[in-house]
Amino acid sequence: MPIVSQKGKAMPESPIRKLVPFAEKAAKEGKRIYHLNIGQPDIKTPIEAMEAVKNHSLDVLAYSHSAGFESFRKKLAGYYAKHDITITSDDILVTTGGSEALIFTMGSITDPGDEIIVPEPFYANYYSFSTQSTVTVVPVISKLETGFALPAIEEFEKLITKKTKAILICNPGNPTGYLYSKHEIQQLAKLAIKYDLFLISDEVYREFVYDDIEHYSVLQEKELDEHAIVVDSVSKRYSMCGARIGCIVSKNKSVMETAMKFAQARLSPPTFAQIASEAALEAPESYYQETVSKYKNRRDTLVAGLREIPGVKVAEPMGAFYCIAELPIDNADHFAQWLLDKFELNKETVMLAPASGFYSSPNEGLNQVRIAYVLNRRDLKKAIEILRVALEKYNS
Amino acid sequence: MPIVSQKGKAMPESPIRKLVPFAEKAAKEGKRIYHLNIGQPDIKTPIEAMEAVKNHSLDVLAYSHSAGFESFRKKLAGYYAKHDITITSDDILVTTGGSEALIFTMGSITDPGDEIIVPEPFYANYYSFSTQSTVTVVPVISKLETGFALPAIEEFEKLITKKTKAILICNPGNPTGYLYSKHEIQQLAKLAIKYDLFLISDEVYREFVYDDIEHYSVLQEKELDEHAIVVDSVSKRYSMCGARIGCIVSKNKSVMETAMKFAQARLSPPTFAQIASEAALEAPESYYQETVSKYKNRRDTLVAGLREIPGVKVAEPMGAFYCIAELPIDNADHFAQWLLDKFELNKETVMLAPASGFYSSPNEGLNQVRIAYVLNRRDLKKAIEILRVALEKYNS
Repeated sequence: MPIVSQKGKAMPESPIRKLVPFAEKAAKEGKRIYHLNIGQPDIKTPIEAMEAVKNHSLDVLAYSHSAGFESFRKKLAGYYAKHDITITSDDILVTTGGSEALIFTMGSITDPGDEIIVPEPFYANYYSFSTQSTVTVVPVISKLETGFALPAIEEFEKLITKKTKAILICNPGNPTGYLYSKHEIQQLAKLAIKYDLFLISDEVYREFVYDDIEHYSVLQEKELDEHAIVVDSVSKRYSMCGARIGCIVSKNKSVMETAMKFAQARLSPPTFAQIASEAALEAPESYYQETVSKYKNRRDTLVAGLREIPGVKVAEPMGAFYCIAELPIDNADHFAQWLLDKFELNKETVMLAPASGFYSSPNEGLNQVRIAYVLNRRDLKKAIEILRVALEKYNS
Repeated sequence: MPIVSQKGKAMPESPIRKLVPFAEKAAKEGKRIYHLNIGQPDIKTPIEAMEAVKNHSLDVLAYSHSAGFESFRKKLAGYYAKHDITITSDDILVTTGGSEALIFTMGSITDPGDEIIVPEPFYANYYSFSTQSTVTVVPVISKLETGFALPAIEEFEKLITKKTKAILICNPGNPTGYLYSKHEIQQLAKLAIKYDLFLISDEVYREFVYDDIEHYSVLQEKELDEHAIVVDSVSKRYSMCGARIGCIVSKNKSVMETAMKFAQARLSPPTFAQIASEAALEAPESYYQETVSKYKNRRDTLVAGLREIPGVKVAEPMGAFYCIAELPIDNADHFAQWLLDKFELNKETVMLAPASGFYSSPNEGLNQVRIAYVLNRRDLKKAIEILRVALEKYNS
């Protein structure tokens, strides 16, 4: 029998995959599960996007341009302008989700064996995309104690080798909720220039920033034009995860020309999803404001609730809609399974994402979980209460 | 300045990219261009698909299952059953186009430096996807003189090394239009078993078969269950190229589990496109019959027309909607450019795809072009007349 590739064997499973059978069993037993484990927002997609698709007048669902509709890219450039990011539609390549944007970026700048430095904990699929590209993720650890702030620049410098091609950050961060300051971005910019590295910034949560702190994009750093690559997506911004539309934004012409070759090979991004995404840009300011205000309230509810549970530590997230919480337990994988399999409070339980899946260093984050606050506040409060009782019982 | 990857540099450009500026210039000068160069069908997408999207009732455009809607996969299994292919929905992984199906397949079965044997000329993007996976395409040449029939099995055997992981065919073929016989598929099946190779069959043109010849799938070969991987797509079948929905079909569980890890990393295929693709399966038999009958007439018109031009050789295609034509010229790249740049007949000209882009062997197919017959017969006749006059002028 012919066998699968080494790379295929090395591809990680989804961090919560092991929990899925237990969740299914719990659901079958009639337990209600509060899902704190997934980043699927419950917010409504802008009506403009949904109506545009309903009102389509296509007879033939044809290929679009490999870089995406020109009209869409022009409007996207307008969107970035509102965020003090000055680019043209030529600096944008529309991709099939932020996922494809990451895959094309890695393909465009790395060869097998190359290295990318990533602050840890990081979005688990960075590891998958690297494995797929036979590129090595080199983690630099950030700590709950500092709120997952940028590690000292010397820590990055220690890890730079001849094979280092890029530093990859997520800003604001999944799973940490940390928002890098302008100063931190500028430190990374200097480092990228000094060592001739790309600075890839995953900014899909750009709009989800609380407490009146401004998001500062790598694209706002003038000296970084040849180094900065932004990965973006409509998935979270407009609660359109199923669209699968994202983009690469860079002023580095060689990168964009190379990424375009990957884009041409796969022909085009999905047409209906582009129609929806272009229309979503017409959503009023109030859509963003209401969404952000909702998440801010949820964050406040979650953090306050978690801090009332004895032994739980949490760094207040400044953006995105996740936080990493340290629990008074030894093994979050075991605890998350136990919650689904053995525990219930009035026929209800919670599903958590063990944080180990967001670390590539072994034995890091074993007592941590990622919590996504994509539930309404009432449910969030119930979920926290369940977690409190469960921790008491688990530890007794 | 940080630089792009070796792999990125090696990624080929689209075979017609060099011609695009000339086509744009010709269009600006008011020339009408008959596009014989692209595989974008003019056939209407099934109304069932278009209406399903118009009638969607989603509030939140959420992620779907990473393997695609279960309801869609079940209906797809029913579709294959009608083609004497016995599989279950678990043997299907829905992908973002046939493109992603090929990328996941290569990723699942190859590591950098591995080899895949492909009869040549082949779909140009096989080379792109291989380059992306740092896999080597090893071409085995098929000839116009034999209608691009399967090369002798000994020719394949000569090329098999320790690094050979698979044989990749396109059936019926883009760009050749050749349809492999049951006997040829069985010869390949024996070879795959003998050398423990995967046999990947791109069957996206399955429905486009003329002259009452039956399409024979690698999935119909019982002994091949662990070796056969089918790449499929709705793009051509339902004239839905812009949907970006395809699938991998295989009974090899390790392959499917591995491909699923790639699928989970990119989260899900596009939702609206899945709604359209699932509904397209409800198109009546008459949709297929009318489409195939239209293409058959076009093929007959094209082949008869081409054979009347002195010095033109063409192998009659049995399937898909392309043919390779040998022209009485030395350099098809130059001729194709000249057609756009220097030639016109009553303010009209044609755009051809030089066949060199479909060969990885150097200096093969230099006097050949690929012609796609996705125009109505009147336009096709005009295009052939233009080509006839142009060849006369070019050679005088």
